Amino acid sequence: MIQLAEISPDAPADINKDEIKNVVREFGRDISDLQELLYANGKHGLLVVFQGMDTSGKDGTTEKVFRYCTPNGVHAFSFKKPTDLEFAHDFLWRVHKVTPPKGKIHVFNRSHYEDILIQRVHDWIDDVKREKRMKAINEFEELLSFDSNTIVLKFYLHISKEKQKEKLEERMQVERKFWKYNPGDWKEREHWDKYMEAYEYVFNNSKIPWNIVPANQRWYRNYVVAKKVRQTLLDLNMTYPPLATEE
Amino acid sequence: MIQLAEISPDAPADINKDEIKNVVREFGRDISDLQELLYANGKHGLLVVFQGMDTSGKDGTTEKVFRYCTPNGVHAFSFKKPTDLEFAHDFLWRVHKVTPPKGKIHVFNRSHYEDILIQRVHDWIDDVKREKRMKAINEFEELLSFDSNTIVLKFYLHISKEKQKEKLEERMQVERKFWKYNPGDWKEREHWDKYMEAYEYVFNNSKIPWNIVPANQRWYRNYVVAKKVRQTLLDLNMTYPPLATEE
Repeated sequence: MIQLAEISPDAPADINKDEIKNVVREFGRDISDLQELLYANGKHGLLVVFQGMDTSGKDGTTEKVFRYCTPNGVHAFSFKKPTDLEFAHDFLWRVHKVTPPKGKIHVFNRSHYEDILIQRVHDWIDDVKREKRMKAINEFEELLSFDSNTIVLKFYLHISKEKQKEKLEERMQVERKFWKYNPGDWKEREHWDKYMEAYEYVFNNSKIPWNIVPANQRWYRNYVVAKKVRQTLLDLNMTYPPLATEE
Repeated sequence: MIQLAEISPDAPADINKDEIKNVVREFGRDISDLQELLYANGKHGLLVVFQGMDTSGKDGTTEKVFRYCTPNGVHAFSFKKPTDLEFAHDFLWRVHKVTPPKGKIHVFNRSHYEDILIQRVHDWIDDVKREKRMKAINEFEELLSFDSNTIVLKFYLHISKEKQKEKLEERMQVERKFWKYNPGDWKEREHWDKYMEAYEYVFNNSKIPWNIVPANQRWYRNYVVAKKVRQTLLDLNMTYPPLATEE
């Protein structure tokens, strides 16, 4: 049973920030090499899902962890408010279209989980619908796993309510960050406790487990994610394929 | 009139390789910053098209020029032999689906131009069909330009026939490159002269001009492309937008 209040959003005290930043850079280069190997082999896809409250760093983590990868190998997708066409379909329709083919890494900034998070928090769906959708998500992720060897890696970027306030204020004060600021984020923040409950439902009912990432410090958050992505790829024990002899 | 035989595929003799490699790295970081600005403004898209013979470095250039960009901002697409569904549509159907939205950079590794290159070289289409398609391409690229402010930047990576031989042999000798080797590339190479003619037709009939990039040396090729991409983004004279005051 995951209870977010019991998990610290802060980096452990005994860790050296500068060292960790170098490690993240090394891990990033490893991930780039491993992605090439993933492509050369063409046997697995990797789906990385980022969820978290506003300002938790979903975009920032994507940038730092995959920045050494070629754009040929890593595609990132942001799921915002569904379009009319998307709303006219089941909630998995828009995500299924962009799951990774073998050899590639796809990154979801928000995902199909929003349909049981924001939608439940605002009572747009009830518990019965949430349960049905949760079951559909479990089946969907299992389908990806068994039928196209897609590895599904899910990260919750865990920040404190105080840290969010700090970051929202930063967006209002630093000119280069103005464009990230959305006045509506303050309104959404009022539902903080309901969001925590909704997330706990997700973590405790997902078949493929979640990684809860302490995200109050950007550098530690990047480290935890990069470490997990790198290890997941290493565990595939891939080698470069032999020379093709015929067309 | 562009005639490829008159353009050197080699880097100028008086240029320092190590200096240039550092410049490419700096340009790469600039391009990353400029892409963020492109996204913050949301007024223009950028479509970068790479064409060139096998081994000319389409993938490698994508990696080196855009490697500091976040995967959220740059998507790359490789167009290979069309699928049955793609063949059942007009030749622009599959590319139109993945043109860049405002704020993003999309990179095409091969493109709609293949439909008047490989298809003409092998006589799958005749001159009349080629002319019609060329006209359709010009109209299509103009549509992207005027109706969604998409900048279309096209690069031909110009290598010599001798250099291609060297690179194909490298793929057969270096274990980490085995996966790139396709025995069919030797057969395609036999049509070299017809390809040069087909490319010249493209260059001399495109409304949006092509950039012919000397590509025998990877480092110089990356420099020419990075310089052009960076300058194109700088010319937009973008600034960070002001703070939003209402939702």
